[in-house]
Amino acid sequence: MGRSKKIIVIGGSAAGPKAAARARRLDENAEITIIQKGKYLSMASCGYPYYVGGVFDDRNQLISTPAGVIRDPNFFSNAKAIKVYNETEAIDIDRKNKKVICVNHKDNSEFELQYDSLIIATGSLPRIPQLTGKDLAGITTLQSMEDADFLRKIRDDKKIKKAVVIGGGLIGIETCEALQLAGIQITVIEQESQILMFLDPELAKLMENHIRAKAANVITNNAVVEFLGENGKLTAVKLKNGIELPCELAVVAIGVIPNTKLAEKAGLTIGSARGIAVNEFLQTSDENIYACGDCIEIPNLLTGIKNNAPYGDLANLEGRVAGGNALFGNVRKFPGTIHTCICKVFDYSAGSTGMSEYKAKKMGFDVESVVIAGLDKPGFMKGKLLITKVTADKKTGRLIGLQCVGAGDVSKQIAQAAIAIMGKLTISDLVNADLPYAPPFTLAIDNFVACCHTLENKINGLFKGISSYEVNEKVIKREPVFFLDVRSPQEFEEMRLGIGETLIPLGALRKRLNELPEDKNKEIIVYCKISLRGYEAARIIQAHGWTNVKVMEGGIMAWPFYREK
Amino acid sequence: MGRSKKIIVIGGSAAGPKAAARARRLDENAEITIIQKGKYLSMASCGYPYYVGGVFDDRNQLISTPAGVIRDPNFFSNAKAIKVYNETEAIDIDRKNKKVICVNHKDNSEFELQYDSLIIATGSLPRIPQLTGKDLAGITTLQSMEDADFLRKIRDDKKIKKAVVIGGGLIGIETCEALQLAGIQITVIEQESQILMFLDPELAKLMENHIRAKAANVITNNAVVEFLGENGKLTAVKLKNGIELPCELAVVAIGVIPNTKLAEKAGLTIGSARGIAVNEFLQTSDENIYACGDCIEIPNLLTGIKNNAPYGDLANLEGRVAGGNALFGNVRKFPGTIHTCICKVFDYSAGSTGMSEYKAKKMGFDVESVVIAGLDKPGFMKGKLLITKVTADKKTGRLIGLQCVGAGDVSKQIAQAAIAIMGKLTISDLVNADLPYAPPFTLAIDNFVACCHTLENKINGLFKGISSYEVNEKVIKREPVFFLDVRSPQEFEEMRLGIGETLIPLGALRKRLNELPEDKNKEIIVYCKISLRGYEAARIIQAHGWTNVKVMEGGIMAWPFYREK
Repeated sequence: MGRSKKIIVIGGSAAGPKAAARARRLDENAEITIIQKGKYLSMASCGYPYYVGGVFDDRNQLISTPAGVIRDPNFFSNAKAIKVYNETEAIDIDRKNKKVICVNHKDNSEFELQYDSLIIATGSLPRIPQLTGKDLAGITTLQSMEDADFLRKIRDDKKIKKAVVIGGGLIGIETCEALQLAGIQITVIEQESQILMFLDPELAKLMENHIRAKAANVITNNAVVEFLGENGKLTAVKLKNGIELPCELAVVAIGVIPNTKLAEKAGLTIGSARGIAVNEFLQTSDENIYACGDCIEIPNLLTGIKNNAPYGDLANLEGRVAGGNALFGNVRKFPGTIHTCICKVFDYSAGSTGMSEYKAKKMGFDVESVVIAGLDKPGFMKGKLLITKVTADKKTGRLIGLQCVGAGDVSKQIAQAAIAIMGKLTISDLVNADLPYAPPFTLAIDNFVACCHTLENKINGLFKGISSYEVNEKVIKREPVFFLDVRSPQEFEEMRLGIGETLIPLGALRKRLNELPEDKNKEIIVYCKISLRGYEAARIIQAHGWTNVKVMEGGIMAWPFYREK
Repeated sequence: MGRSKKIIVIGGSAAGPKAAARARRLDENAEITIIQKGKYLSMASCGYPYYVGGVFDDRNQLISTPAGVIRDPNFFSNAKAIKVYNETEAIDIDRKNKKVICVNHKDNSEFELQYDSLIIATGSLPRIPQLTGKDLAGITTLQSMEDADFLRKIRDDKKIKKAVVIGGGLIGIETCEALQLAGIQITVIEQESQILMFLDPELAKLMENHIRAKAANVITNNAVVEFLGENGKLTAVKLKNGIELPCELAVVAIGVIPNTKLAEKAGLTIGSARGIAVNEFLQTSDENIYACGDCIEIPNLLTGIKNNAPYGDLANLEGRVAGGNALFGNVRKFPGTIHTCICKVFDYSAGSTGMSEYKAKKMGFDVESVVIAGLDKPGFMKGKLLITKVTADKKTGRLIGLQCVGAGDVSKQIAQAAIAIMGKLTISDLVNADLPYAPPFTLAIDNFVACCHTLENKINGLFKGISSYEVNEKVIKREPVFFLDVRSPQEFEEMRLGIGETLIPLGALRKRLNELPEDKNKEIIVYCKISLRGYEAARIIQAHGWTNVKVMEGGIMAWPFYREK
């Protein structure tokens, strides 16, 4: 091709600029243009909650390079020879003539741009509940620089006392922390029975408890049905159950939907998950148009089913692939997602990769899961707690999911598991994983490997597990279970469930088997602090003929309900 | 088998107790015995440097369960129904009659124990240089509880002012930090040309610089040839080059050798790496004898070649496998090692998994490597620096090594890479890895993925790299290279190499190409702070016809030599 290729990128947040920059690095001679509806470019939008919360104060850090240069049109022009039209909207695509029709919102002028390859990166739009009062002042999302500025000002002004966050997902929970750190009394309202739906309920409940312990309130199984106001200002939200919660601020964080308006108008195929349909090369139904970022749908690598995966890291990776393919044709594939995610909430983190047990079962997998409590480092190095749930596919033996919450190094646990899932490693492979070990970083047997050991033991029938939720049900129903705590008397004094349990320390168990139920078929549920001793106790009891012995997974540390002490 | 199986474990440090405990959990009825030469059992020996350095003060934490129970013979008896003979040495194995002959060192009594299966876990012995003066007081290793007690007392007494650490490997460097924190003036002496041989030299040099910056001295390419003393006490060490270094303490940390004495005496096969030879089931040349831990040799998973791999985590994993196989026959395999390791040194960490570039080339692999500097988290979240070197096998495209040093989260980088190597993932797989992303934990494109992007670019010929070492050679030899720094004038003012470089900021480069050498074949070496802008500049310059353009990998942040400013 003699002349240089013309590439237009629609969208300037994450995927778009990445695609444009990648294309530039691959071809110095291409003509590359970004059309961005908003004012700002290449925003670190995942950083908004930390700016709002005061973790840092210089908002320009959200839109600057690591060297401190603001990523404005001037920067793109000088450093990357990329022409940027910001505050400019692509309102139509003339696919036949390969033109994009644009409106400059600064002066309302309309103009056309010619392309050889087009990249659509129009992102996502926040869901907004269509409720009475939704236009009252004081209702916002946290999706844009302007939102971040608005909420940061509220923080700095210190006038607002009460706020609600609608939605207990990643953004909602991060926003909860940000506003709580700003001294605002927060209530999170989630319509599902739990927050952080990527977690199974027993782990989500632990996060909920932690948020409450930090003085923010969480309401589940409820929803806002009306915004109430005075003089155009929000004064309260009304919930489904009739309660009115006074508040001066409501942040809506009930998810995002792919912004496919332009693609639809241009007649591009929209997929089953309502994102722009793309093939593995991120090519749309028009061979000259690629798409990347939140506006597309991509396959779940475990199920093959197309999903929205509106994560900032994937937007960048997709942009890199789309940028190259738009230049050279279909040279690189983007395989898909395993929905890896993480968020920090006060002193805890919560993350997940692959599928939760609930999701896996719903998708028809025959799975085995286990919940484990453990430290990330030795106690003498001030190790912190991790509660992990690991899920394997029984048919293949492969790891297909890991969730982890707690004060410890959750990020590493999730990252390790994500790579293991991508590498199709089985639990049998992972029980002997050669990981970096030294006491400042991890236990001799890293929590991840220990989890795989426990799951392997469970799969091999060495113990039967029972979740804290199931135990709690039994307690509530007063089922005739023999609860056995095998910790030391001192530990029992300091902390205990108080569910009618018997204390027999592990070290004394073999001599005190006579204190166990006479009926060898009676249900015995055994636990300790983290249920390592609980497991050892179960092995002993089973060996002595009791047939219905279960280990309460994760022990007391993973117990999310009321306890006596 | 009607009667319960008799299992004897020789060795009570890490692998041995793990094997015994695993066997107990698998079979409540087995008769399990541990014979331990020393007094202590199941010591967290990797924690010794942190006890010596005062990171924690309660030495019992090194020999206690997480619940605080000391792992003494009484604990093993009560909690695990395992009989322990400590301060007892297994002096011979009568393989024909399946007996172990023991000496109780408390009363010098000799006795025999019968086994069905035997597990040898005799560990390793520190190498001691056979030099004049080696028996002087003040010369020690850091391999036992007694060593740790000795060095901790030195710390607490605050009398010793100067010490040397002989050996710049993992233990040597950890010991250096521990003693330096104790207020002792330290010199590390390493006979090779670099410390931390698992790193390639350009990364090792950065660690060396950091140690020096913390006021500990490092001498490479030298060795102790004599210990000098007065009145039986160490007063100095004499080096190969004749220099005498005054010191009152010398810690010898020049590695360990498998302790195979007993196995050899029993006629078991010893392997090419001088460890006890075992098959993939950790079974020795005697089908009734298994071995695990530092005393054996295991395959490198990348080369198949047998190695010593004296790591605490592998000892535990091997113990778990040996414990089960000793009971039930060969039911579980231990696949081998990729030599994953990590250590903390003051504010930096250094880790490696798989092979260094040097090692891979030595083993005959055709590899491509790249060094990258980057942050572990966004700047606005106080991200810290990582210098990473990633190595791929050109033939298969597989990741075969990753080394990482710096103040950032090295542990996660190494862990991710270790799993990727075990999963046989290629660089092409990893460029689209779906990892956990949120600003408190990582960049939108995690350092690991960014490294894979860069290596892919290099493999695809998008740029030619040059290491800091090679650049330094050229500077020393005054080769006629055009050095180009593409940072901002402000950055140049604050920090610069001063190697005769020209400054042209990236954003101005396209307009100032006339300042580049007229000779389009002249060697141009370009860099910035981390060499991301350097890479972009190289792409521009190449596109304009210069043919010999190289990017200095890792930029100024990875430059380990003298700089002007």
